[in-house]
Formats: sequence, C-alpha cells, structure tokens
Amino acid sequence: MLSETIQLWDDNDTVALHSYIQNNSMEFQKDQLRPAVLICPGGGYLGTSDREAEPVALKFASLGYRTFVLRYTTYYKEWVEDFNNPPAPNEKSAYPQPLFDLAKAMIIIRENASKWLVDSEKIAVCGFSAGAHLSASMGVHWNSSLLKEKFNSENEIFKPNAVILGYPLLDYQLMKEKVEEEANEFIKEFFEISNRAVFGTPNPSLEQLSEVSPVNFVSSQTPPTFIWHTADDGLVYAENSLRFATALAKNKVSYELHVFESGVHGLSLCDETTAGEPSHINPECSVWVDLAQNWLNKHFK
Amino acid sequence: MLSETIQLWDDNDTVALHSYIQNNSMEFQKDQLRPAVLICPGGGYLGTSDREAEPVALKFASLGYRTFVLRYTTYYKEWVEDFNNPPAPNEKSAYPQPLFDLAKAMIIIRENASKWLVDSEKIAVCGFSAGAHLSASMGVHWNSSLLKEKFNSENEIFKPNAVILGYPLLDYQLMKEKVEEEANEFIKEFFEISNRAVFGTPNPSLEQLSEVSPVNFVSSQTPPTFIWHTADDGLVYAENSLRFATALAKNKVSYELHVFESGVHGLSLCDETTAGEPSHINPECSVWVDLAQNWLNKHFK
Repeated sequence: MLSETIQLWDDNDTVALHSYIQNNSMEFQKDQLRPAVLICPGGGYLGTSDREAEPVALKFASLGYRTFVLRYTTYYKEWVEDFNNPPAPNEKSAYPQPLFDLAKAMIIIRENASKWLVDSEKIAVCGFSAGAHLSASMGVHWNSSLLKEKFNSENEIFKPNAVILGYPLLDYQLMKEKVEEEANEFIKEFFEISNRAVFGTPNPSLEQLSEVSPVNFVSSQTPPTFIWHTADDGLVYAENSLRFATALAKNKVSYELHVFESGVHGLSLCDETTAGEPSHINPECSVWVDLAQNWLNKHFK
Repeated sequence: MLSETIQLWDDNDTVALHSYIQNNSMEFQKDQLRPAVLICPGGGYLGTSDREAEPVALKFASLGYRTFVLRYTTYYKEWVEDFNNPPAPNEKSAYPQPLFDLAKAMIIIRENASKWLVDSEKIAVCGFSAGAHLSASMGVHWNSSLLKEKFNSENEIFKPNAVILGYPLLDYQLMKEKVEEEANEFIKEFFEISNRAVFGTPNPSLEQLSEVSPVNFVSSQTPPTFIWHTADDGLVYAENSLRFATALAKNKVSYELHVFESGVHGLSLCDETTAGEPSHINPECSVWVDLAQNWLNKHFK
C-alpha cells in the first residue's frame, strides 16, 4: 500500500491529505484506474475524529477503491479530551477555510490521478457529522465563483462525482431552532464552541447560519447523494437529512436516504472497527456500508 | 395452515379479511401467541392488487407472524385490465369507507386473537401505495371519535401497534401540486379516476384533499412507523414519505425511513415472487423486507 501524508498548506502543518493506495500489481487489474473515496471525518469542527478516518478509508480500500482521509482545518489542532482544559484555539478555522482545504484536496487527487491510478471522473466524498457538512458544502458549492477565484481553476476540478453523508449537519437554522426548543444545556454549550470554530462567534446571525447551511444551496448541479442518519440522533437531528433530501428531490438530483430508527450520534462503521464505546456497535445501522457500496457501484462501475 | 375468508359486511361480498395462520403444533411453540401482520394491498383505491396481497402475507407468515390480507372497498369490484372498458363502479367507495373496513378487520382480529393465537398487543398493519395510505390513515385516526362512534367501541381495539408503509400516498395536496407541475397526462388521468374512488369526485376541494391526507393528522399517539419508497417513483412521489417522516419526528414518534435511489412504483417484495414485469425485480430495494423484519422484531419480540 502507498500511504502518504501530503501537507496542504505551507503555513499549517496539521491540515493534510492521507492516501491509501493499493499497490499496483502485474497479476491483476494492472494500471487500472479505479474510483476513489475521500473521507472527511467529523468532530464538530473542533477536531477530526480518528474513529471516522483511517478505519473508514481501509473499509473502502478493501472494497477496491483508492481512498484518502482529509484532516481539514479545525478549532483545535488536536483532539480535545477535556473541554475544561483545552489547548489554544485556532482563530482562523472559520468557513470557508475547511471548504478551501477540501477544494485543495480535490485538486491534489485529480492532479495525481495517474500516479495513484484514480479515475478522475469517479471521485466520491464521504463525510460524517461536521465532515458530512463539509462534504455536502462541496456538493453544493463546487461550481461557485468563490472556489474558482481562490484557486484560479476551472470549477470541474472541485466536483465530487458522488457524495456520501453520515449523520450530516446541513441546516444550521433548523439546529438553532431545535436546540432552543429542546433546551438541552450540553448541546447548547457544544454548539457555542462549535460555532466559534465555524463562524468565529458563539452566536452567529441568522444570515450567517443560512450562508453556511448546504440545504440552502442545492441545485440541479449537486452530485448524486447518499445520506444516512438515525432518527433519534440527539446531537445532529435527523431532520437535517430529511430537509436535504427534500431539496435534492425538488432539484431532481438522484439521492438515496436511510434513516434508521435508533442509534447514537457518531456511529461511523457501527462495528468493532470504529467503536469507542459499546453504543457505537449497532448491527441494524451497520448495513449502511453495504447500502452505500451498492449505491457507489451503480454510479461508478 | 388455517386460511379463512371472512366477509366483513353482510351487504358487500367483495370486502373480506383473509387469514394465514400456521397450524398449532404440540412439538413447538404450542399455544404460543405470536405477533400479527395485516396486509393492505395497493391499487389506487380502484382495486386491490394480488401482487401486494397473498405473497406478502406468506413472506411474513414464513417469518413467524400470523398474517392477514384485507380486501377493502374499492371503486371497482375486480382488478381492471382495460380502463377503456371498465366494469360499473362502486359509488360508495369514498372515504371513510375503507377506513371502516380496516377498523372492522382490527376488531375481528382482536376478537379472534385466542383462536388465531395472535398477541393482541403486537399487531402491525403493512400497506402498499393506496393500501399504505389506508394503513397510515389508521395510524393517525385509530383514536378518533369517528371510529369510536361508528363501532361503539373503545378506540384501543383499532390501534395498530406498528405501521409499515411501502411507497405510500400520504399528502394529497403535495400530489396535486406535483401532478400539475409535472403536467404528466397519464398520472393526471389516473388520479382523476382514483379521486372519484376516494372523494367521489375527480376534482376534490383543497379542504377535501387535506382531510384525507394522513400527514396532517400525525400526533404523539401515532404508532411507530417504518417507511420505504424509491426516490424516482413516478406515480406516488417520495416527498410523501419525507413529509410524513418530518411530521413523525416533530411529534417524537419513533420511525425508520428508507428511500432507495431507484425503482418503479409498485415493487411489492421486489423479487420473482411478486414480479408482474421485469422492472418489478429490484435487488437493491428488496432489502426493505429484511430491514422491516429487523425493525418489527425490535418492537415485537
């Protein structure tokens, strides 16, 4: 396996793309271009979770994909165990910086497609939670002038050919309404910190919330999208996915949606390979991997 | 197997409940009460489709359930092959007659629970298309004064303990908007006939449409609901399911939702056992049966 770490920006040594490329063999599929999956782990834009990174890349690599993990810009440079005693935050983590990171990753993958034997027309982005927010943001903004001007590139280079979203945050206004309605102090405090990361302020305006909500930017140019969620997700509400699917349907974008009845937020692969606690093992939900694989195969094979 | 046909009303010989009760054996599970599944086939309230009737009852019977098929009141007494030459219609098919049929079926099943070894606290209603509309209608109206007064019964006897909806029609106003937007003549004509069956008129008022749309009556009393649909269903739009799931979430009702990317309307079991044409065989969507079984087991076992 060719496993490299590519630092994305000269002035930031934590934002990096990690590659998982099965060795080329003269015995089978020699020099064959294969579809790729780029993983965006979640973590509320405070960090990027290991549980949604390498094990997911290995899962898709085992299914025949070239895979990558993007460690994008977050509020803290490392995973925070104790929020009462956090390290110094990164004051430059706000949007659109993470979107620029993902755009840069797409450029790097497509520019190195022949080296990594990636089929440039078959690159999926697969994110979880905040990473799914980032993935969906690219799904709706790949054709934006913002990216075109930032990188002085044609927009096609940023385009995901498919998007996979696990328990995604897609509608910040919905989140604000529900968090206020539920009056859950833990979630309220979590989003106050996360909002500092995303918006640079704990209390963003409605306009800011709207601007950073992918649900408001779905168009007929949005790529085919696979979404999964749990109906009783207590941190990122499943209505995010219902509203996004509704927007995809309205714009006649091909989509697939699975809302399982029950499971905690942050299930990742739902089995022992990614479990950090017993509630992360959830056989009912683990079928999302097979469902996503079938769906990807239909689009890419 | 004890397979009976029970005519529901003295003055109508086509509305009937069919039972599929595995024989009681002294060798295993002797006298054991089991959960039940009552199937409501679809057919646009013009007829009830064989494809969504007996094979589905046998599928759930094979999984250990007591099963039933309800042939409820429809516009035509038999399945119409040629709509240019239909039989005389039934002018008394309009709502709430089909709901009364289903209510009567629930009473009969619960009154015969000891004979059929049915666990009266574990009765699921499983419908497809128009039959899913009927099933959802019972999900939201089981506690209504309409049923209480019609049958002079306590409402609990009508209550489904779980509801399974396949490609359901749940929002007639949405359907009207979308049908007008798509300007598809075939669908427009289909609903003009179906509306005669349901409303007694081809052009019901907005108030009538609203009154017969289950999505408008979801409450915290609605039973746990499992829904599946295909995103590109060209007859009953998947937004019906998205809106219903949104209403269930709002009322904190437990639900599961699977919207598969692609499949024609009327897939039933999605395999050879119910296929009337090649497009009815759809391996991707056929997993709904396993998903529904897992979900039912969680609630009933």
